Order: sequence, then structure tokens, then C-alpha cells
Amino acid sequence: MRQAGRYMPEYRALRERYSLLDICRTPDLATEVTMQPVRRIELDAAILFSDLLLPLEPMGIRFDFVRGEGPAIENPLRTEADVDRLRQFEPREALAHVLVAVHQIVGALAGRVPLIGFGGAPFTLASYAIEGGHSTSFARTKSMMYSAPEAWHRLCALLADTVADYLVAQVEAGVDAVQIFDSWVGVLDARDYREFILPHTRRIFDALSPYDVPTIHFGVGTSAILRELREAGGHVIGADWRTPLDEAWDRIGHDRGIQGNLDPTLLLGPIDQVLDAADDVLARAGGRPGHIFNLGHGILPATPLERVQALARHVHQQTGR
Amino acid sequence: MRQAGRYMPEYRALRERYSLLDICRTPDLATEVTMQPVRRIELDAAILFSDLLLPLEPMGIRFDFVRGEGPAIENPLRTEADVDRLRQFEPREALAHVLVAVHQIVGALAGRVPLIGFGGAPFTLASYAIEGGHSTSFARTKSMMYSAPEAWHRLCALLADTVADYLVAQVEAGVDAVQIFDSWVGVLDARDYREFILPHTRRIFDALSPYDVPTIHFGVGTSAILRELREAGGHVIGADWRTPLDEAWDRIGHDRGIQGNLDPTLLLGPIDQVLDAADDVLARAGGRPGHIFNLGHGILPATPLERVQALARHVHQQTGR
Repeated sequence: MRQAGRYMPEYRALRERYSLLDICRTPDLATEVTMQPVRRIELDAAILFSDLLLPLEPMGIRFDFVRGEGPAIENPLRTEADVDRLRQFEPREALAHVLVAVHQIVGALAGRVPLIGFGGAPFTLASYAIEGGHSTSFARTKSMMYSAPEAWHRLCALLADTVADYLVAQVEAGVDAVQIFDSWVGVLDARDYREFILPHTRRIFDALSPYDVPTIHFGVGTSAILRELREAGGHVIGADWRTPLDEAWDRIGHDRGIQGNLDPTLLLGPIDQVLDAADDVLARAGGRPGHIFNLGHGILPATPLERVQALARHVHQQTGR
Repeated sequence: MRQAGRYMPEYRALRERYSLLDICRTPDLATEVTMQPVRRIELDAAILFSDLLLPLEPMGIRFDFVRGEGPAIENPLRTEADVDRLRQFEPREALAHVLVAVHQIVGALAGRVPLIGFGGAPFTLASYAIEGGHSTSFARTKSMMYSAPEAWHRLCALLADTVADYLVAQVEAGVDAVQIFDSWVGVLDARDYREFILPHTRRIFDALSPYDVPTIHFGVGTSAILRELREAGGHVIGADWRTPLDEAWDRIGHDRGIQGNLDPTLLLGPIDQVLDAADDVLARAGGRPGHIFNLGHGILPATPLERVQALARHVHQQTGR
């Protein structure tokens, strides 16, 4: 998850002058924003500040961010012809600014903590491209999946190749690990996941496998498809708070790592409840190697920074790190 | 789930002249709209056309529906004082129009199929009242839950008593079964569900238990808390499509019924895929008594009516009913 965000005063200050896309596209700003949480919170890794949608634009899908409403795609994909018009591109050219940011961030971190790269997975990217923005039912997305399966598979194969290429470029630019976000794939059941998503997401992990880089595979509301996510790939599978961490890990299998899974909304409440819930997560992880303590989803804008700081300190104290 | 809706031409025709709230508040219109799907589709029950939010208004929470955006609360609950200002009310007076509609619908159905009553559960109602409309993170709701647990429990107790009263009134007016919608409670984990919701929802089922009326307890994305929903109550537990029906039923326990669980977005695709998926649901139910075949959530507006008709016919053919 993005670590920087509106819960940090220094991020809000920057956002008064720059848009989200300005920050993503300007290496100095992306570096600054990536570093903000690392300076303020006891984190064990930094994550590249970026946006899932960046690869869509060089493919021919134009978008912007509407304040308070999230992404808005100007020309969403509605027909097979729309899919056929999409272009492949060379991330080292079209997204060179991200790779420059990676270089700069690695320099700024100076080995203090590793840097995690950042990319979207086919379902989540396809859903934005098709819906045109956020959705709750994902009706248009699933409609294309069911009604035009060939176009769907062409789209997802293209997205998978694009993201794989982009992530390999991030690895070559210096990221130490990669996180792949299939944030919204939890709306699919296991059957649909297997048929429409798994082979595509697997291509991304396959493309990364020659590189000696740990991979994290993340989604929200995926209680019912954790086994399938594991099968698609990832050294570490992310889990949200809906399933207790021990149950989630049992489903994933203990030969893989797990990332999670504190409910980020807890940070809006009293700190003693946050720390109790963190202790519960740690107890369920049982001190086993392979657990990355994290929230189950991103930090909410209204979260007081000092609670995030206290949480990170507490987890380090409890785990003796 | 509501059976009537924008996928039906006769519903769209009515909605050109009347708002959603007009229909809910006018017994003749509510009767007409409740009957529309019963006339067109081979359904085994009718469900009262209504809206979850109706009980909020007589409690002192004003709202309207914004076209294309769903409910908008004028004065959302933000403080404990807001909660303390809420009023109890007598549903037989303030919501008398719903009870008149129930009488009329029972007359119109003339015993052809039973009528299911309709009410919201505390978490879902509280979330609308607090967020002011739809939400994805439920941040304000959970923030009150964690930070002001006494106010939260007062609010939920009041909502539970209100809904219980309202549903008892529906039963006395003639509904044959009751469905309780906790549509959004799947954002909670089992621990929070137990602490903040279960006792309140159970009060609703307890209030209904002296009446000889079957109850259905429904939510979306509840894979991880099906056992807790069962504990809160309901002769039948609703399950969405994310968990295969047999697994969901195992978690719920076979001494309870199950309702579900076809993904409604399938109806946007080819009919042969719909019927295959329906066969899969039926196979997982294994012909056992206690399975109510249904969608896992409401019918989407873009759904072709003839696919819903074909699905209902198919399920009857396959089950010999």
C-alpha cells in the first residue's frame, strides 16, 4: 500500500501545489513523497510512490484524477475494437520518469531500508480501464469477461505483458522487491479467477522469476480466493483483515509468506485498541518467519500520524526488532 | 434482494413519473412495483418493494435519493450528541403506508406466492446514517465504533429495536417471511462483528421469534463471518457468490438454510454461462432441503429481463418444481 498520503502534513502541503499525477511524473517529487513516511515512521521498507494507472496512458487510455472522486478515464474500453486499439509500449521510454525516481529513491534511502516497486495486476487495471473509474458491482468489467472472453483475454494478456515489462524495468532500476496490486479482484469467485485471471497474473510472476527479487501479491476481500492468488504467484500473499491471519496463512500455505493484516480503520480509534489488535495479529503469526506486519489496506486520510508512528514502534518492540 | 428494478421496462416507465421514495411511500405504487416481477418471472416468492432507509426518517435522519448516486443523508450522525437526538417512533403510525402496502400486496398475490418483508440490520443502517451515503472504507462508521463505543451501542440498540418493531408490524400486517439486510457488514472481521454487531442483530431475531415466521439474514462479502451471522440469527443465511455454496453451507451449518448464490453480473453475459453456473450452484446444494436458489446480490440495471426469466424457468426445470 502507499505509505505516503493525506494523513501526513508534509504530503498535504505538497498536494496544495501539485496534483497526484504531477507527483507521480516528477522524479524529485516522487522521491520526496516516497521518503516522507520513511523519515517519520519506523518502517522496514519504503514503497515507491506511484499510481496503478500510469501504464494505461501510454497504452492509449487517457485519465485524470478528480478531487475527492478518484480516477476518471476519458475513453473507457467498451467494445472489442477499443481493446484492439490499445498499444504496447516501452516502459523505459514512456515511464522513464518512474525509473529515474527509483534511482533517486535508492540513493536517498542509502541502504537504510529496501525499496518496494509498485504495479497493478490485470483484473484491477482492466476494471479501471473498462468502468472508467471506481465501481462497486464491476458490472461492465464482468460483462466483457463473460460476453467477450476473447477480447477479455487479449486485454489481460496485454496488461500482464505491459506490467511485467514495467516491473522488470523497476527491478533493473534498483527496487529490492515488487508488490503487485490486484486490489479489486476479491469480487471474483474462485472459478472465474482461475478462468479469467490466474494465467495472466502468473505471466507477471513468471517474467519476474529470473530476477532474484521477492514478490508480494496483494488484494482486498480475497478471503475466498487466497489459494488461487497463491497459485498465480508471489513469495508473499497479502491478506486483508476480514480473515484472521492464522486462518489466512493456513489457506495460503506456510511455504509462502503472508503480509497483513490490521484493519486500517482501527487507526481512527483509540491507540490501545490499535495495539491490542496488532498484538492479536502478531500472536496469530506466531513469530514464524515469513510474516510481514502491515495494514490490510491503505492508511485512511483522517488517520492521526502519531498513531501510525506508535503502531510501528509497538510492532518493533513486540518482535524485538 | 429487490426483485423489481430498472432492468424491467414497466419499472422504468413508472420511475419516469415517480421517485424511488414516492413508490416506497405510496401503497398503490409499492404494490404495483412489488407485483411487476411476480407477473413476469417464475418466482417462488415476492419481496416487498421498499428501501432500507425508510425507518431513519421518523428517527430524525433526513435523506433523499440523488439520481445515479444513491442515498444522500442531509444530516448524517457525526457526534454522540447527534445519536442522542434520535427519536423512537411507532412504525404503525410513521410507516403506516408500508403496512397498508403489505395488506394490498397480500391481496394482490392471492396466495399465489408468499410475501417476504424487508428491513435493514444495525450495521448497514448505522453506516448510511453516519457516512451520509455509500462508502467504500466505512471509515466514519468504524471510527465511531472504535472511538465512541457507548454511542455506537446506543445507536445500534435503538436501530435494532426500531427495525424489530417495524418487522413485527410487517408480520402482523401479513408478510409470510422476513429478510434482514446487513448488506455491508462484510467489511467487519469476526471479532468486531461479535463485539459491535452480533448482540444488536440478535435482538431483532429474538423479537421475531415468538412469531411463526421464517427469517433470512443477508449480507455481501461475508465469507469470513458466516458463522457469526448464523449465531446472530436467521433460519436462512444469505451468501454471495464469493464462496462456493457447499463451502458456505458447511460454515453456516446444515441445521440452517442457505440462500444464494449466483453472481448477478453473470446475467450480463451469455445465457448458457448463466445456466451452467446455476447448475453448479444447484449441484453444490445437492438437492438438500433448505436451499433457496437466489442471486448473491441484486439484479443489475443493465440485465436483460429475458435472461432472468430463462434462469428462473431453468432452476424450476432442474429442481422439478
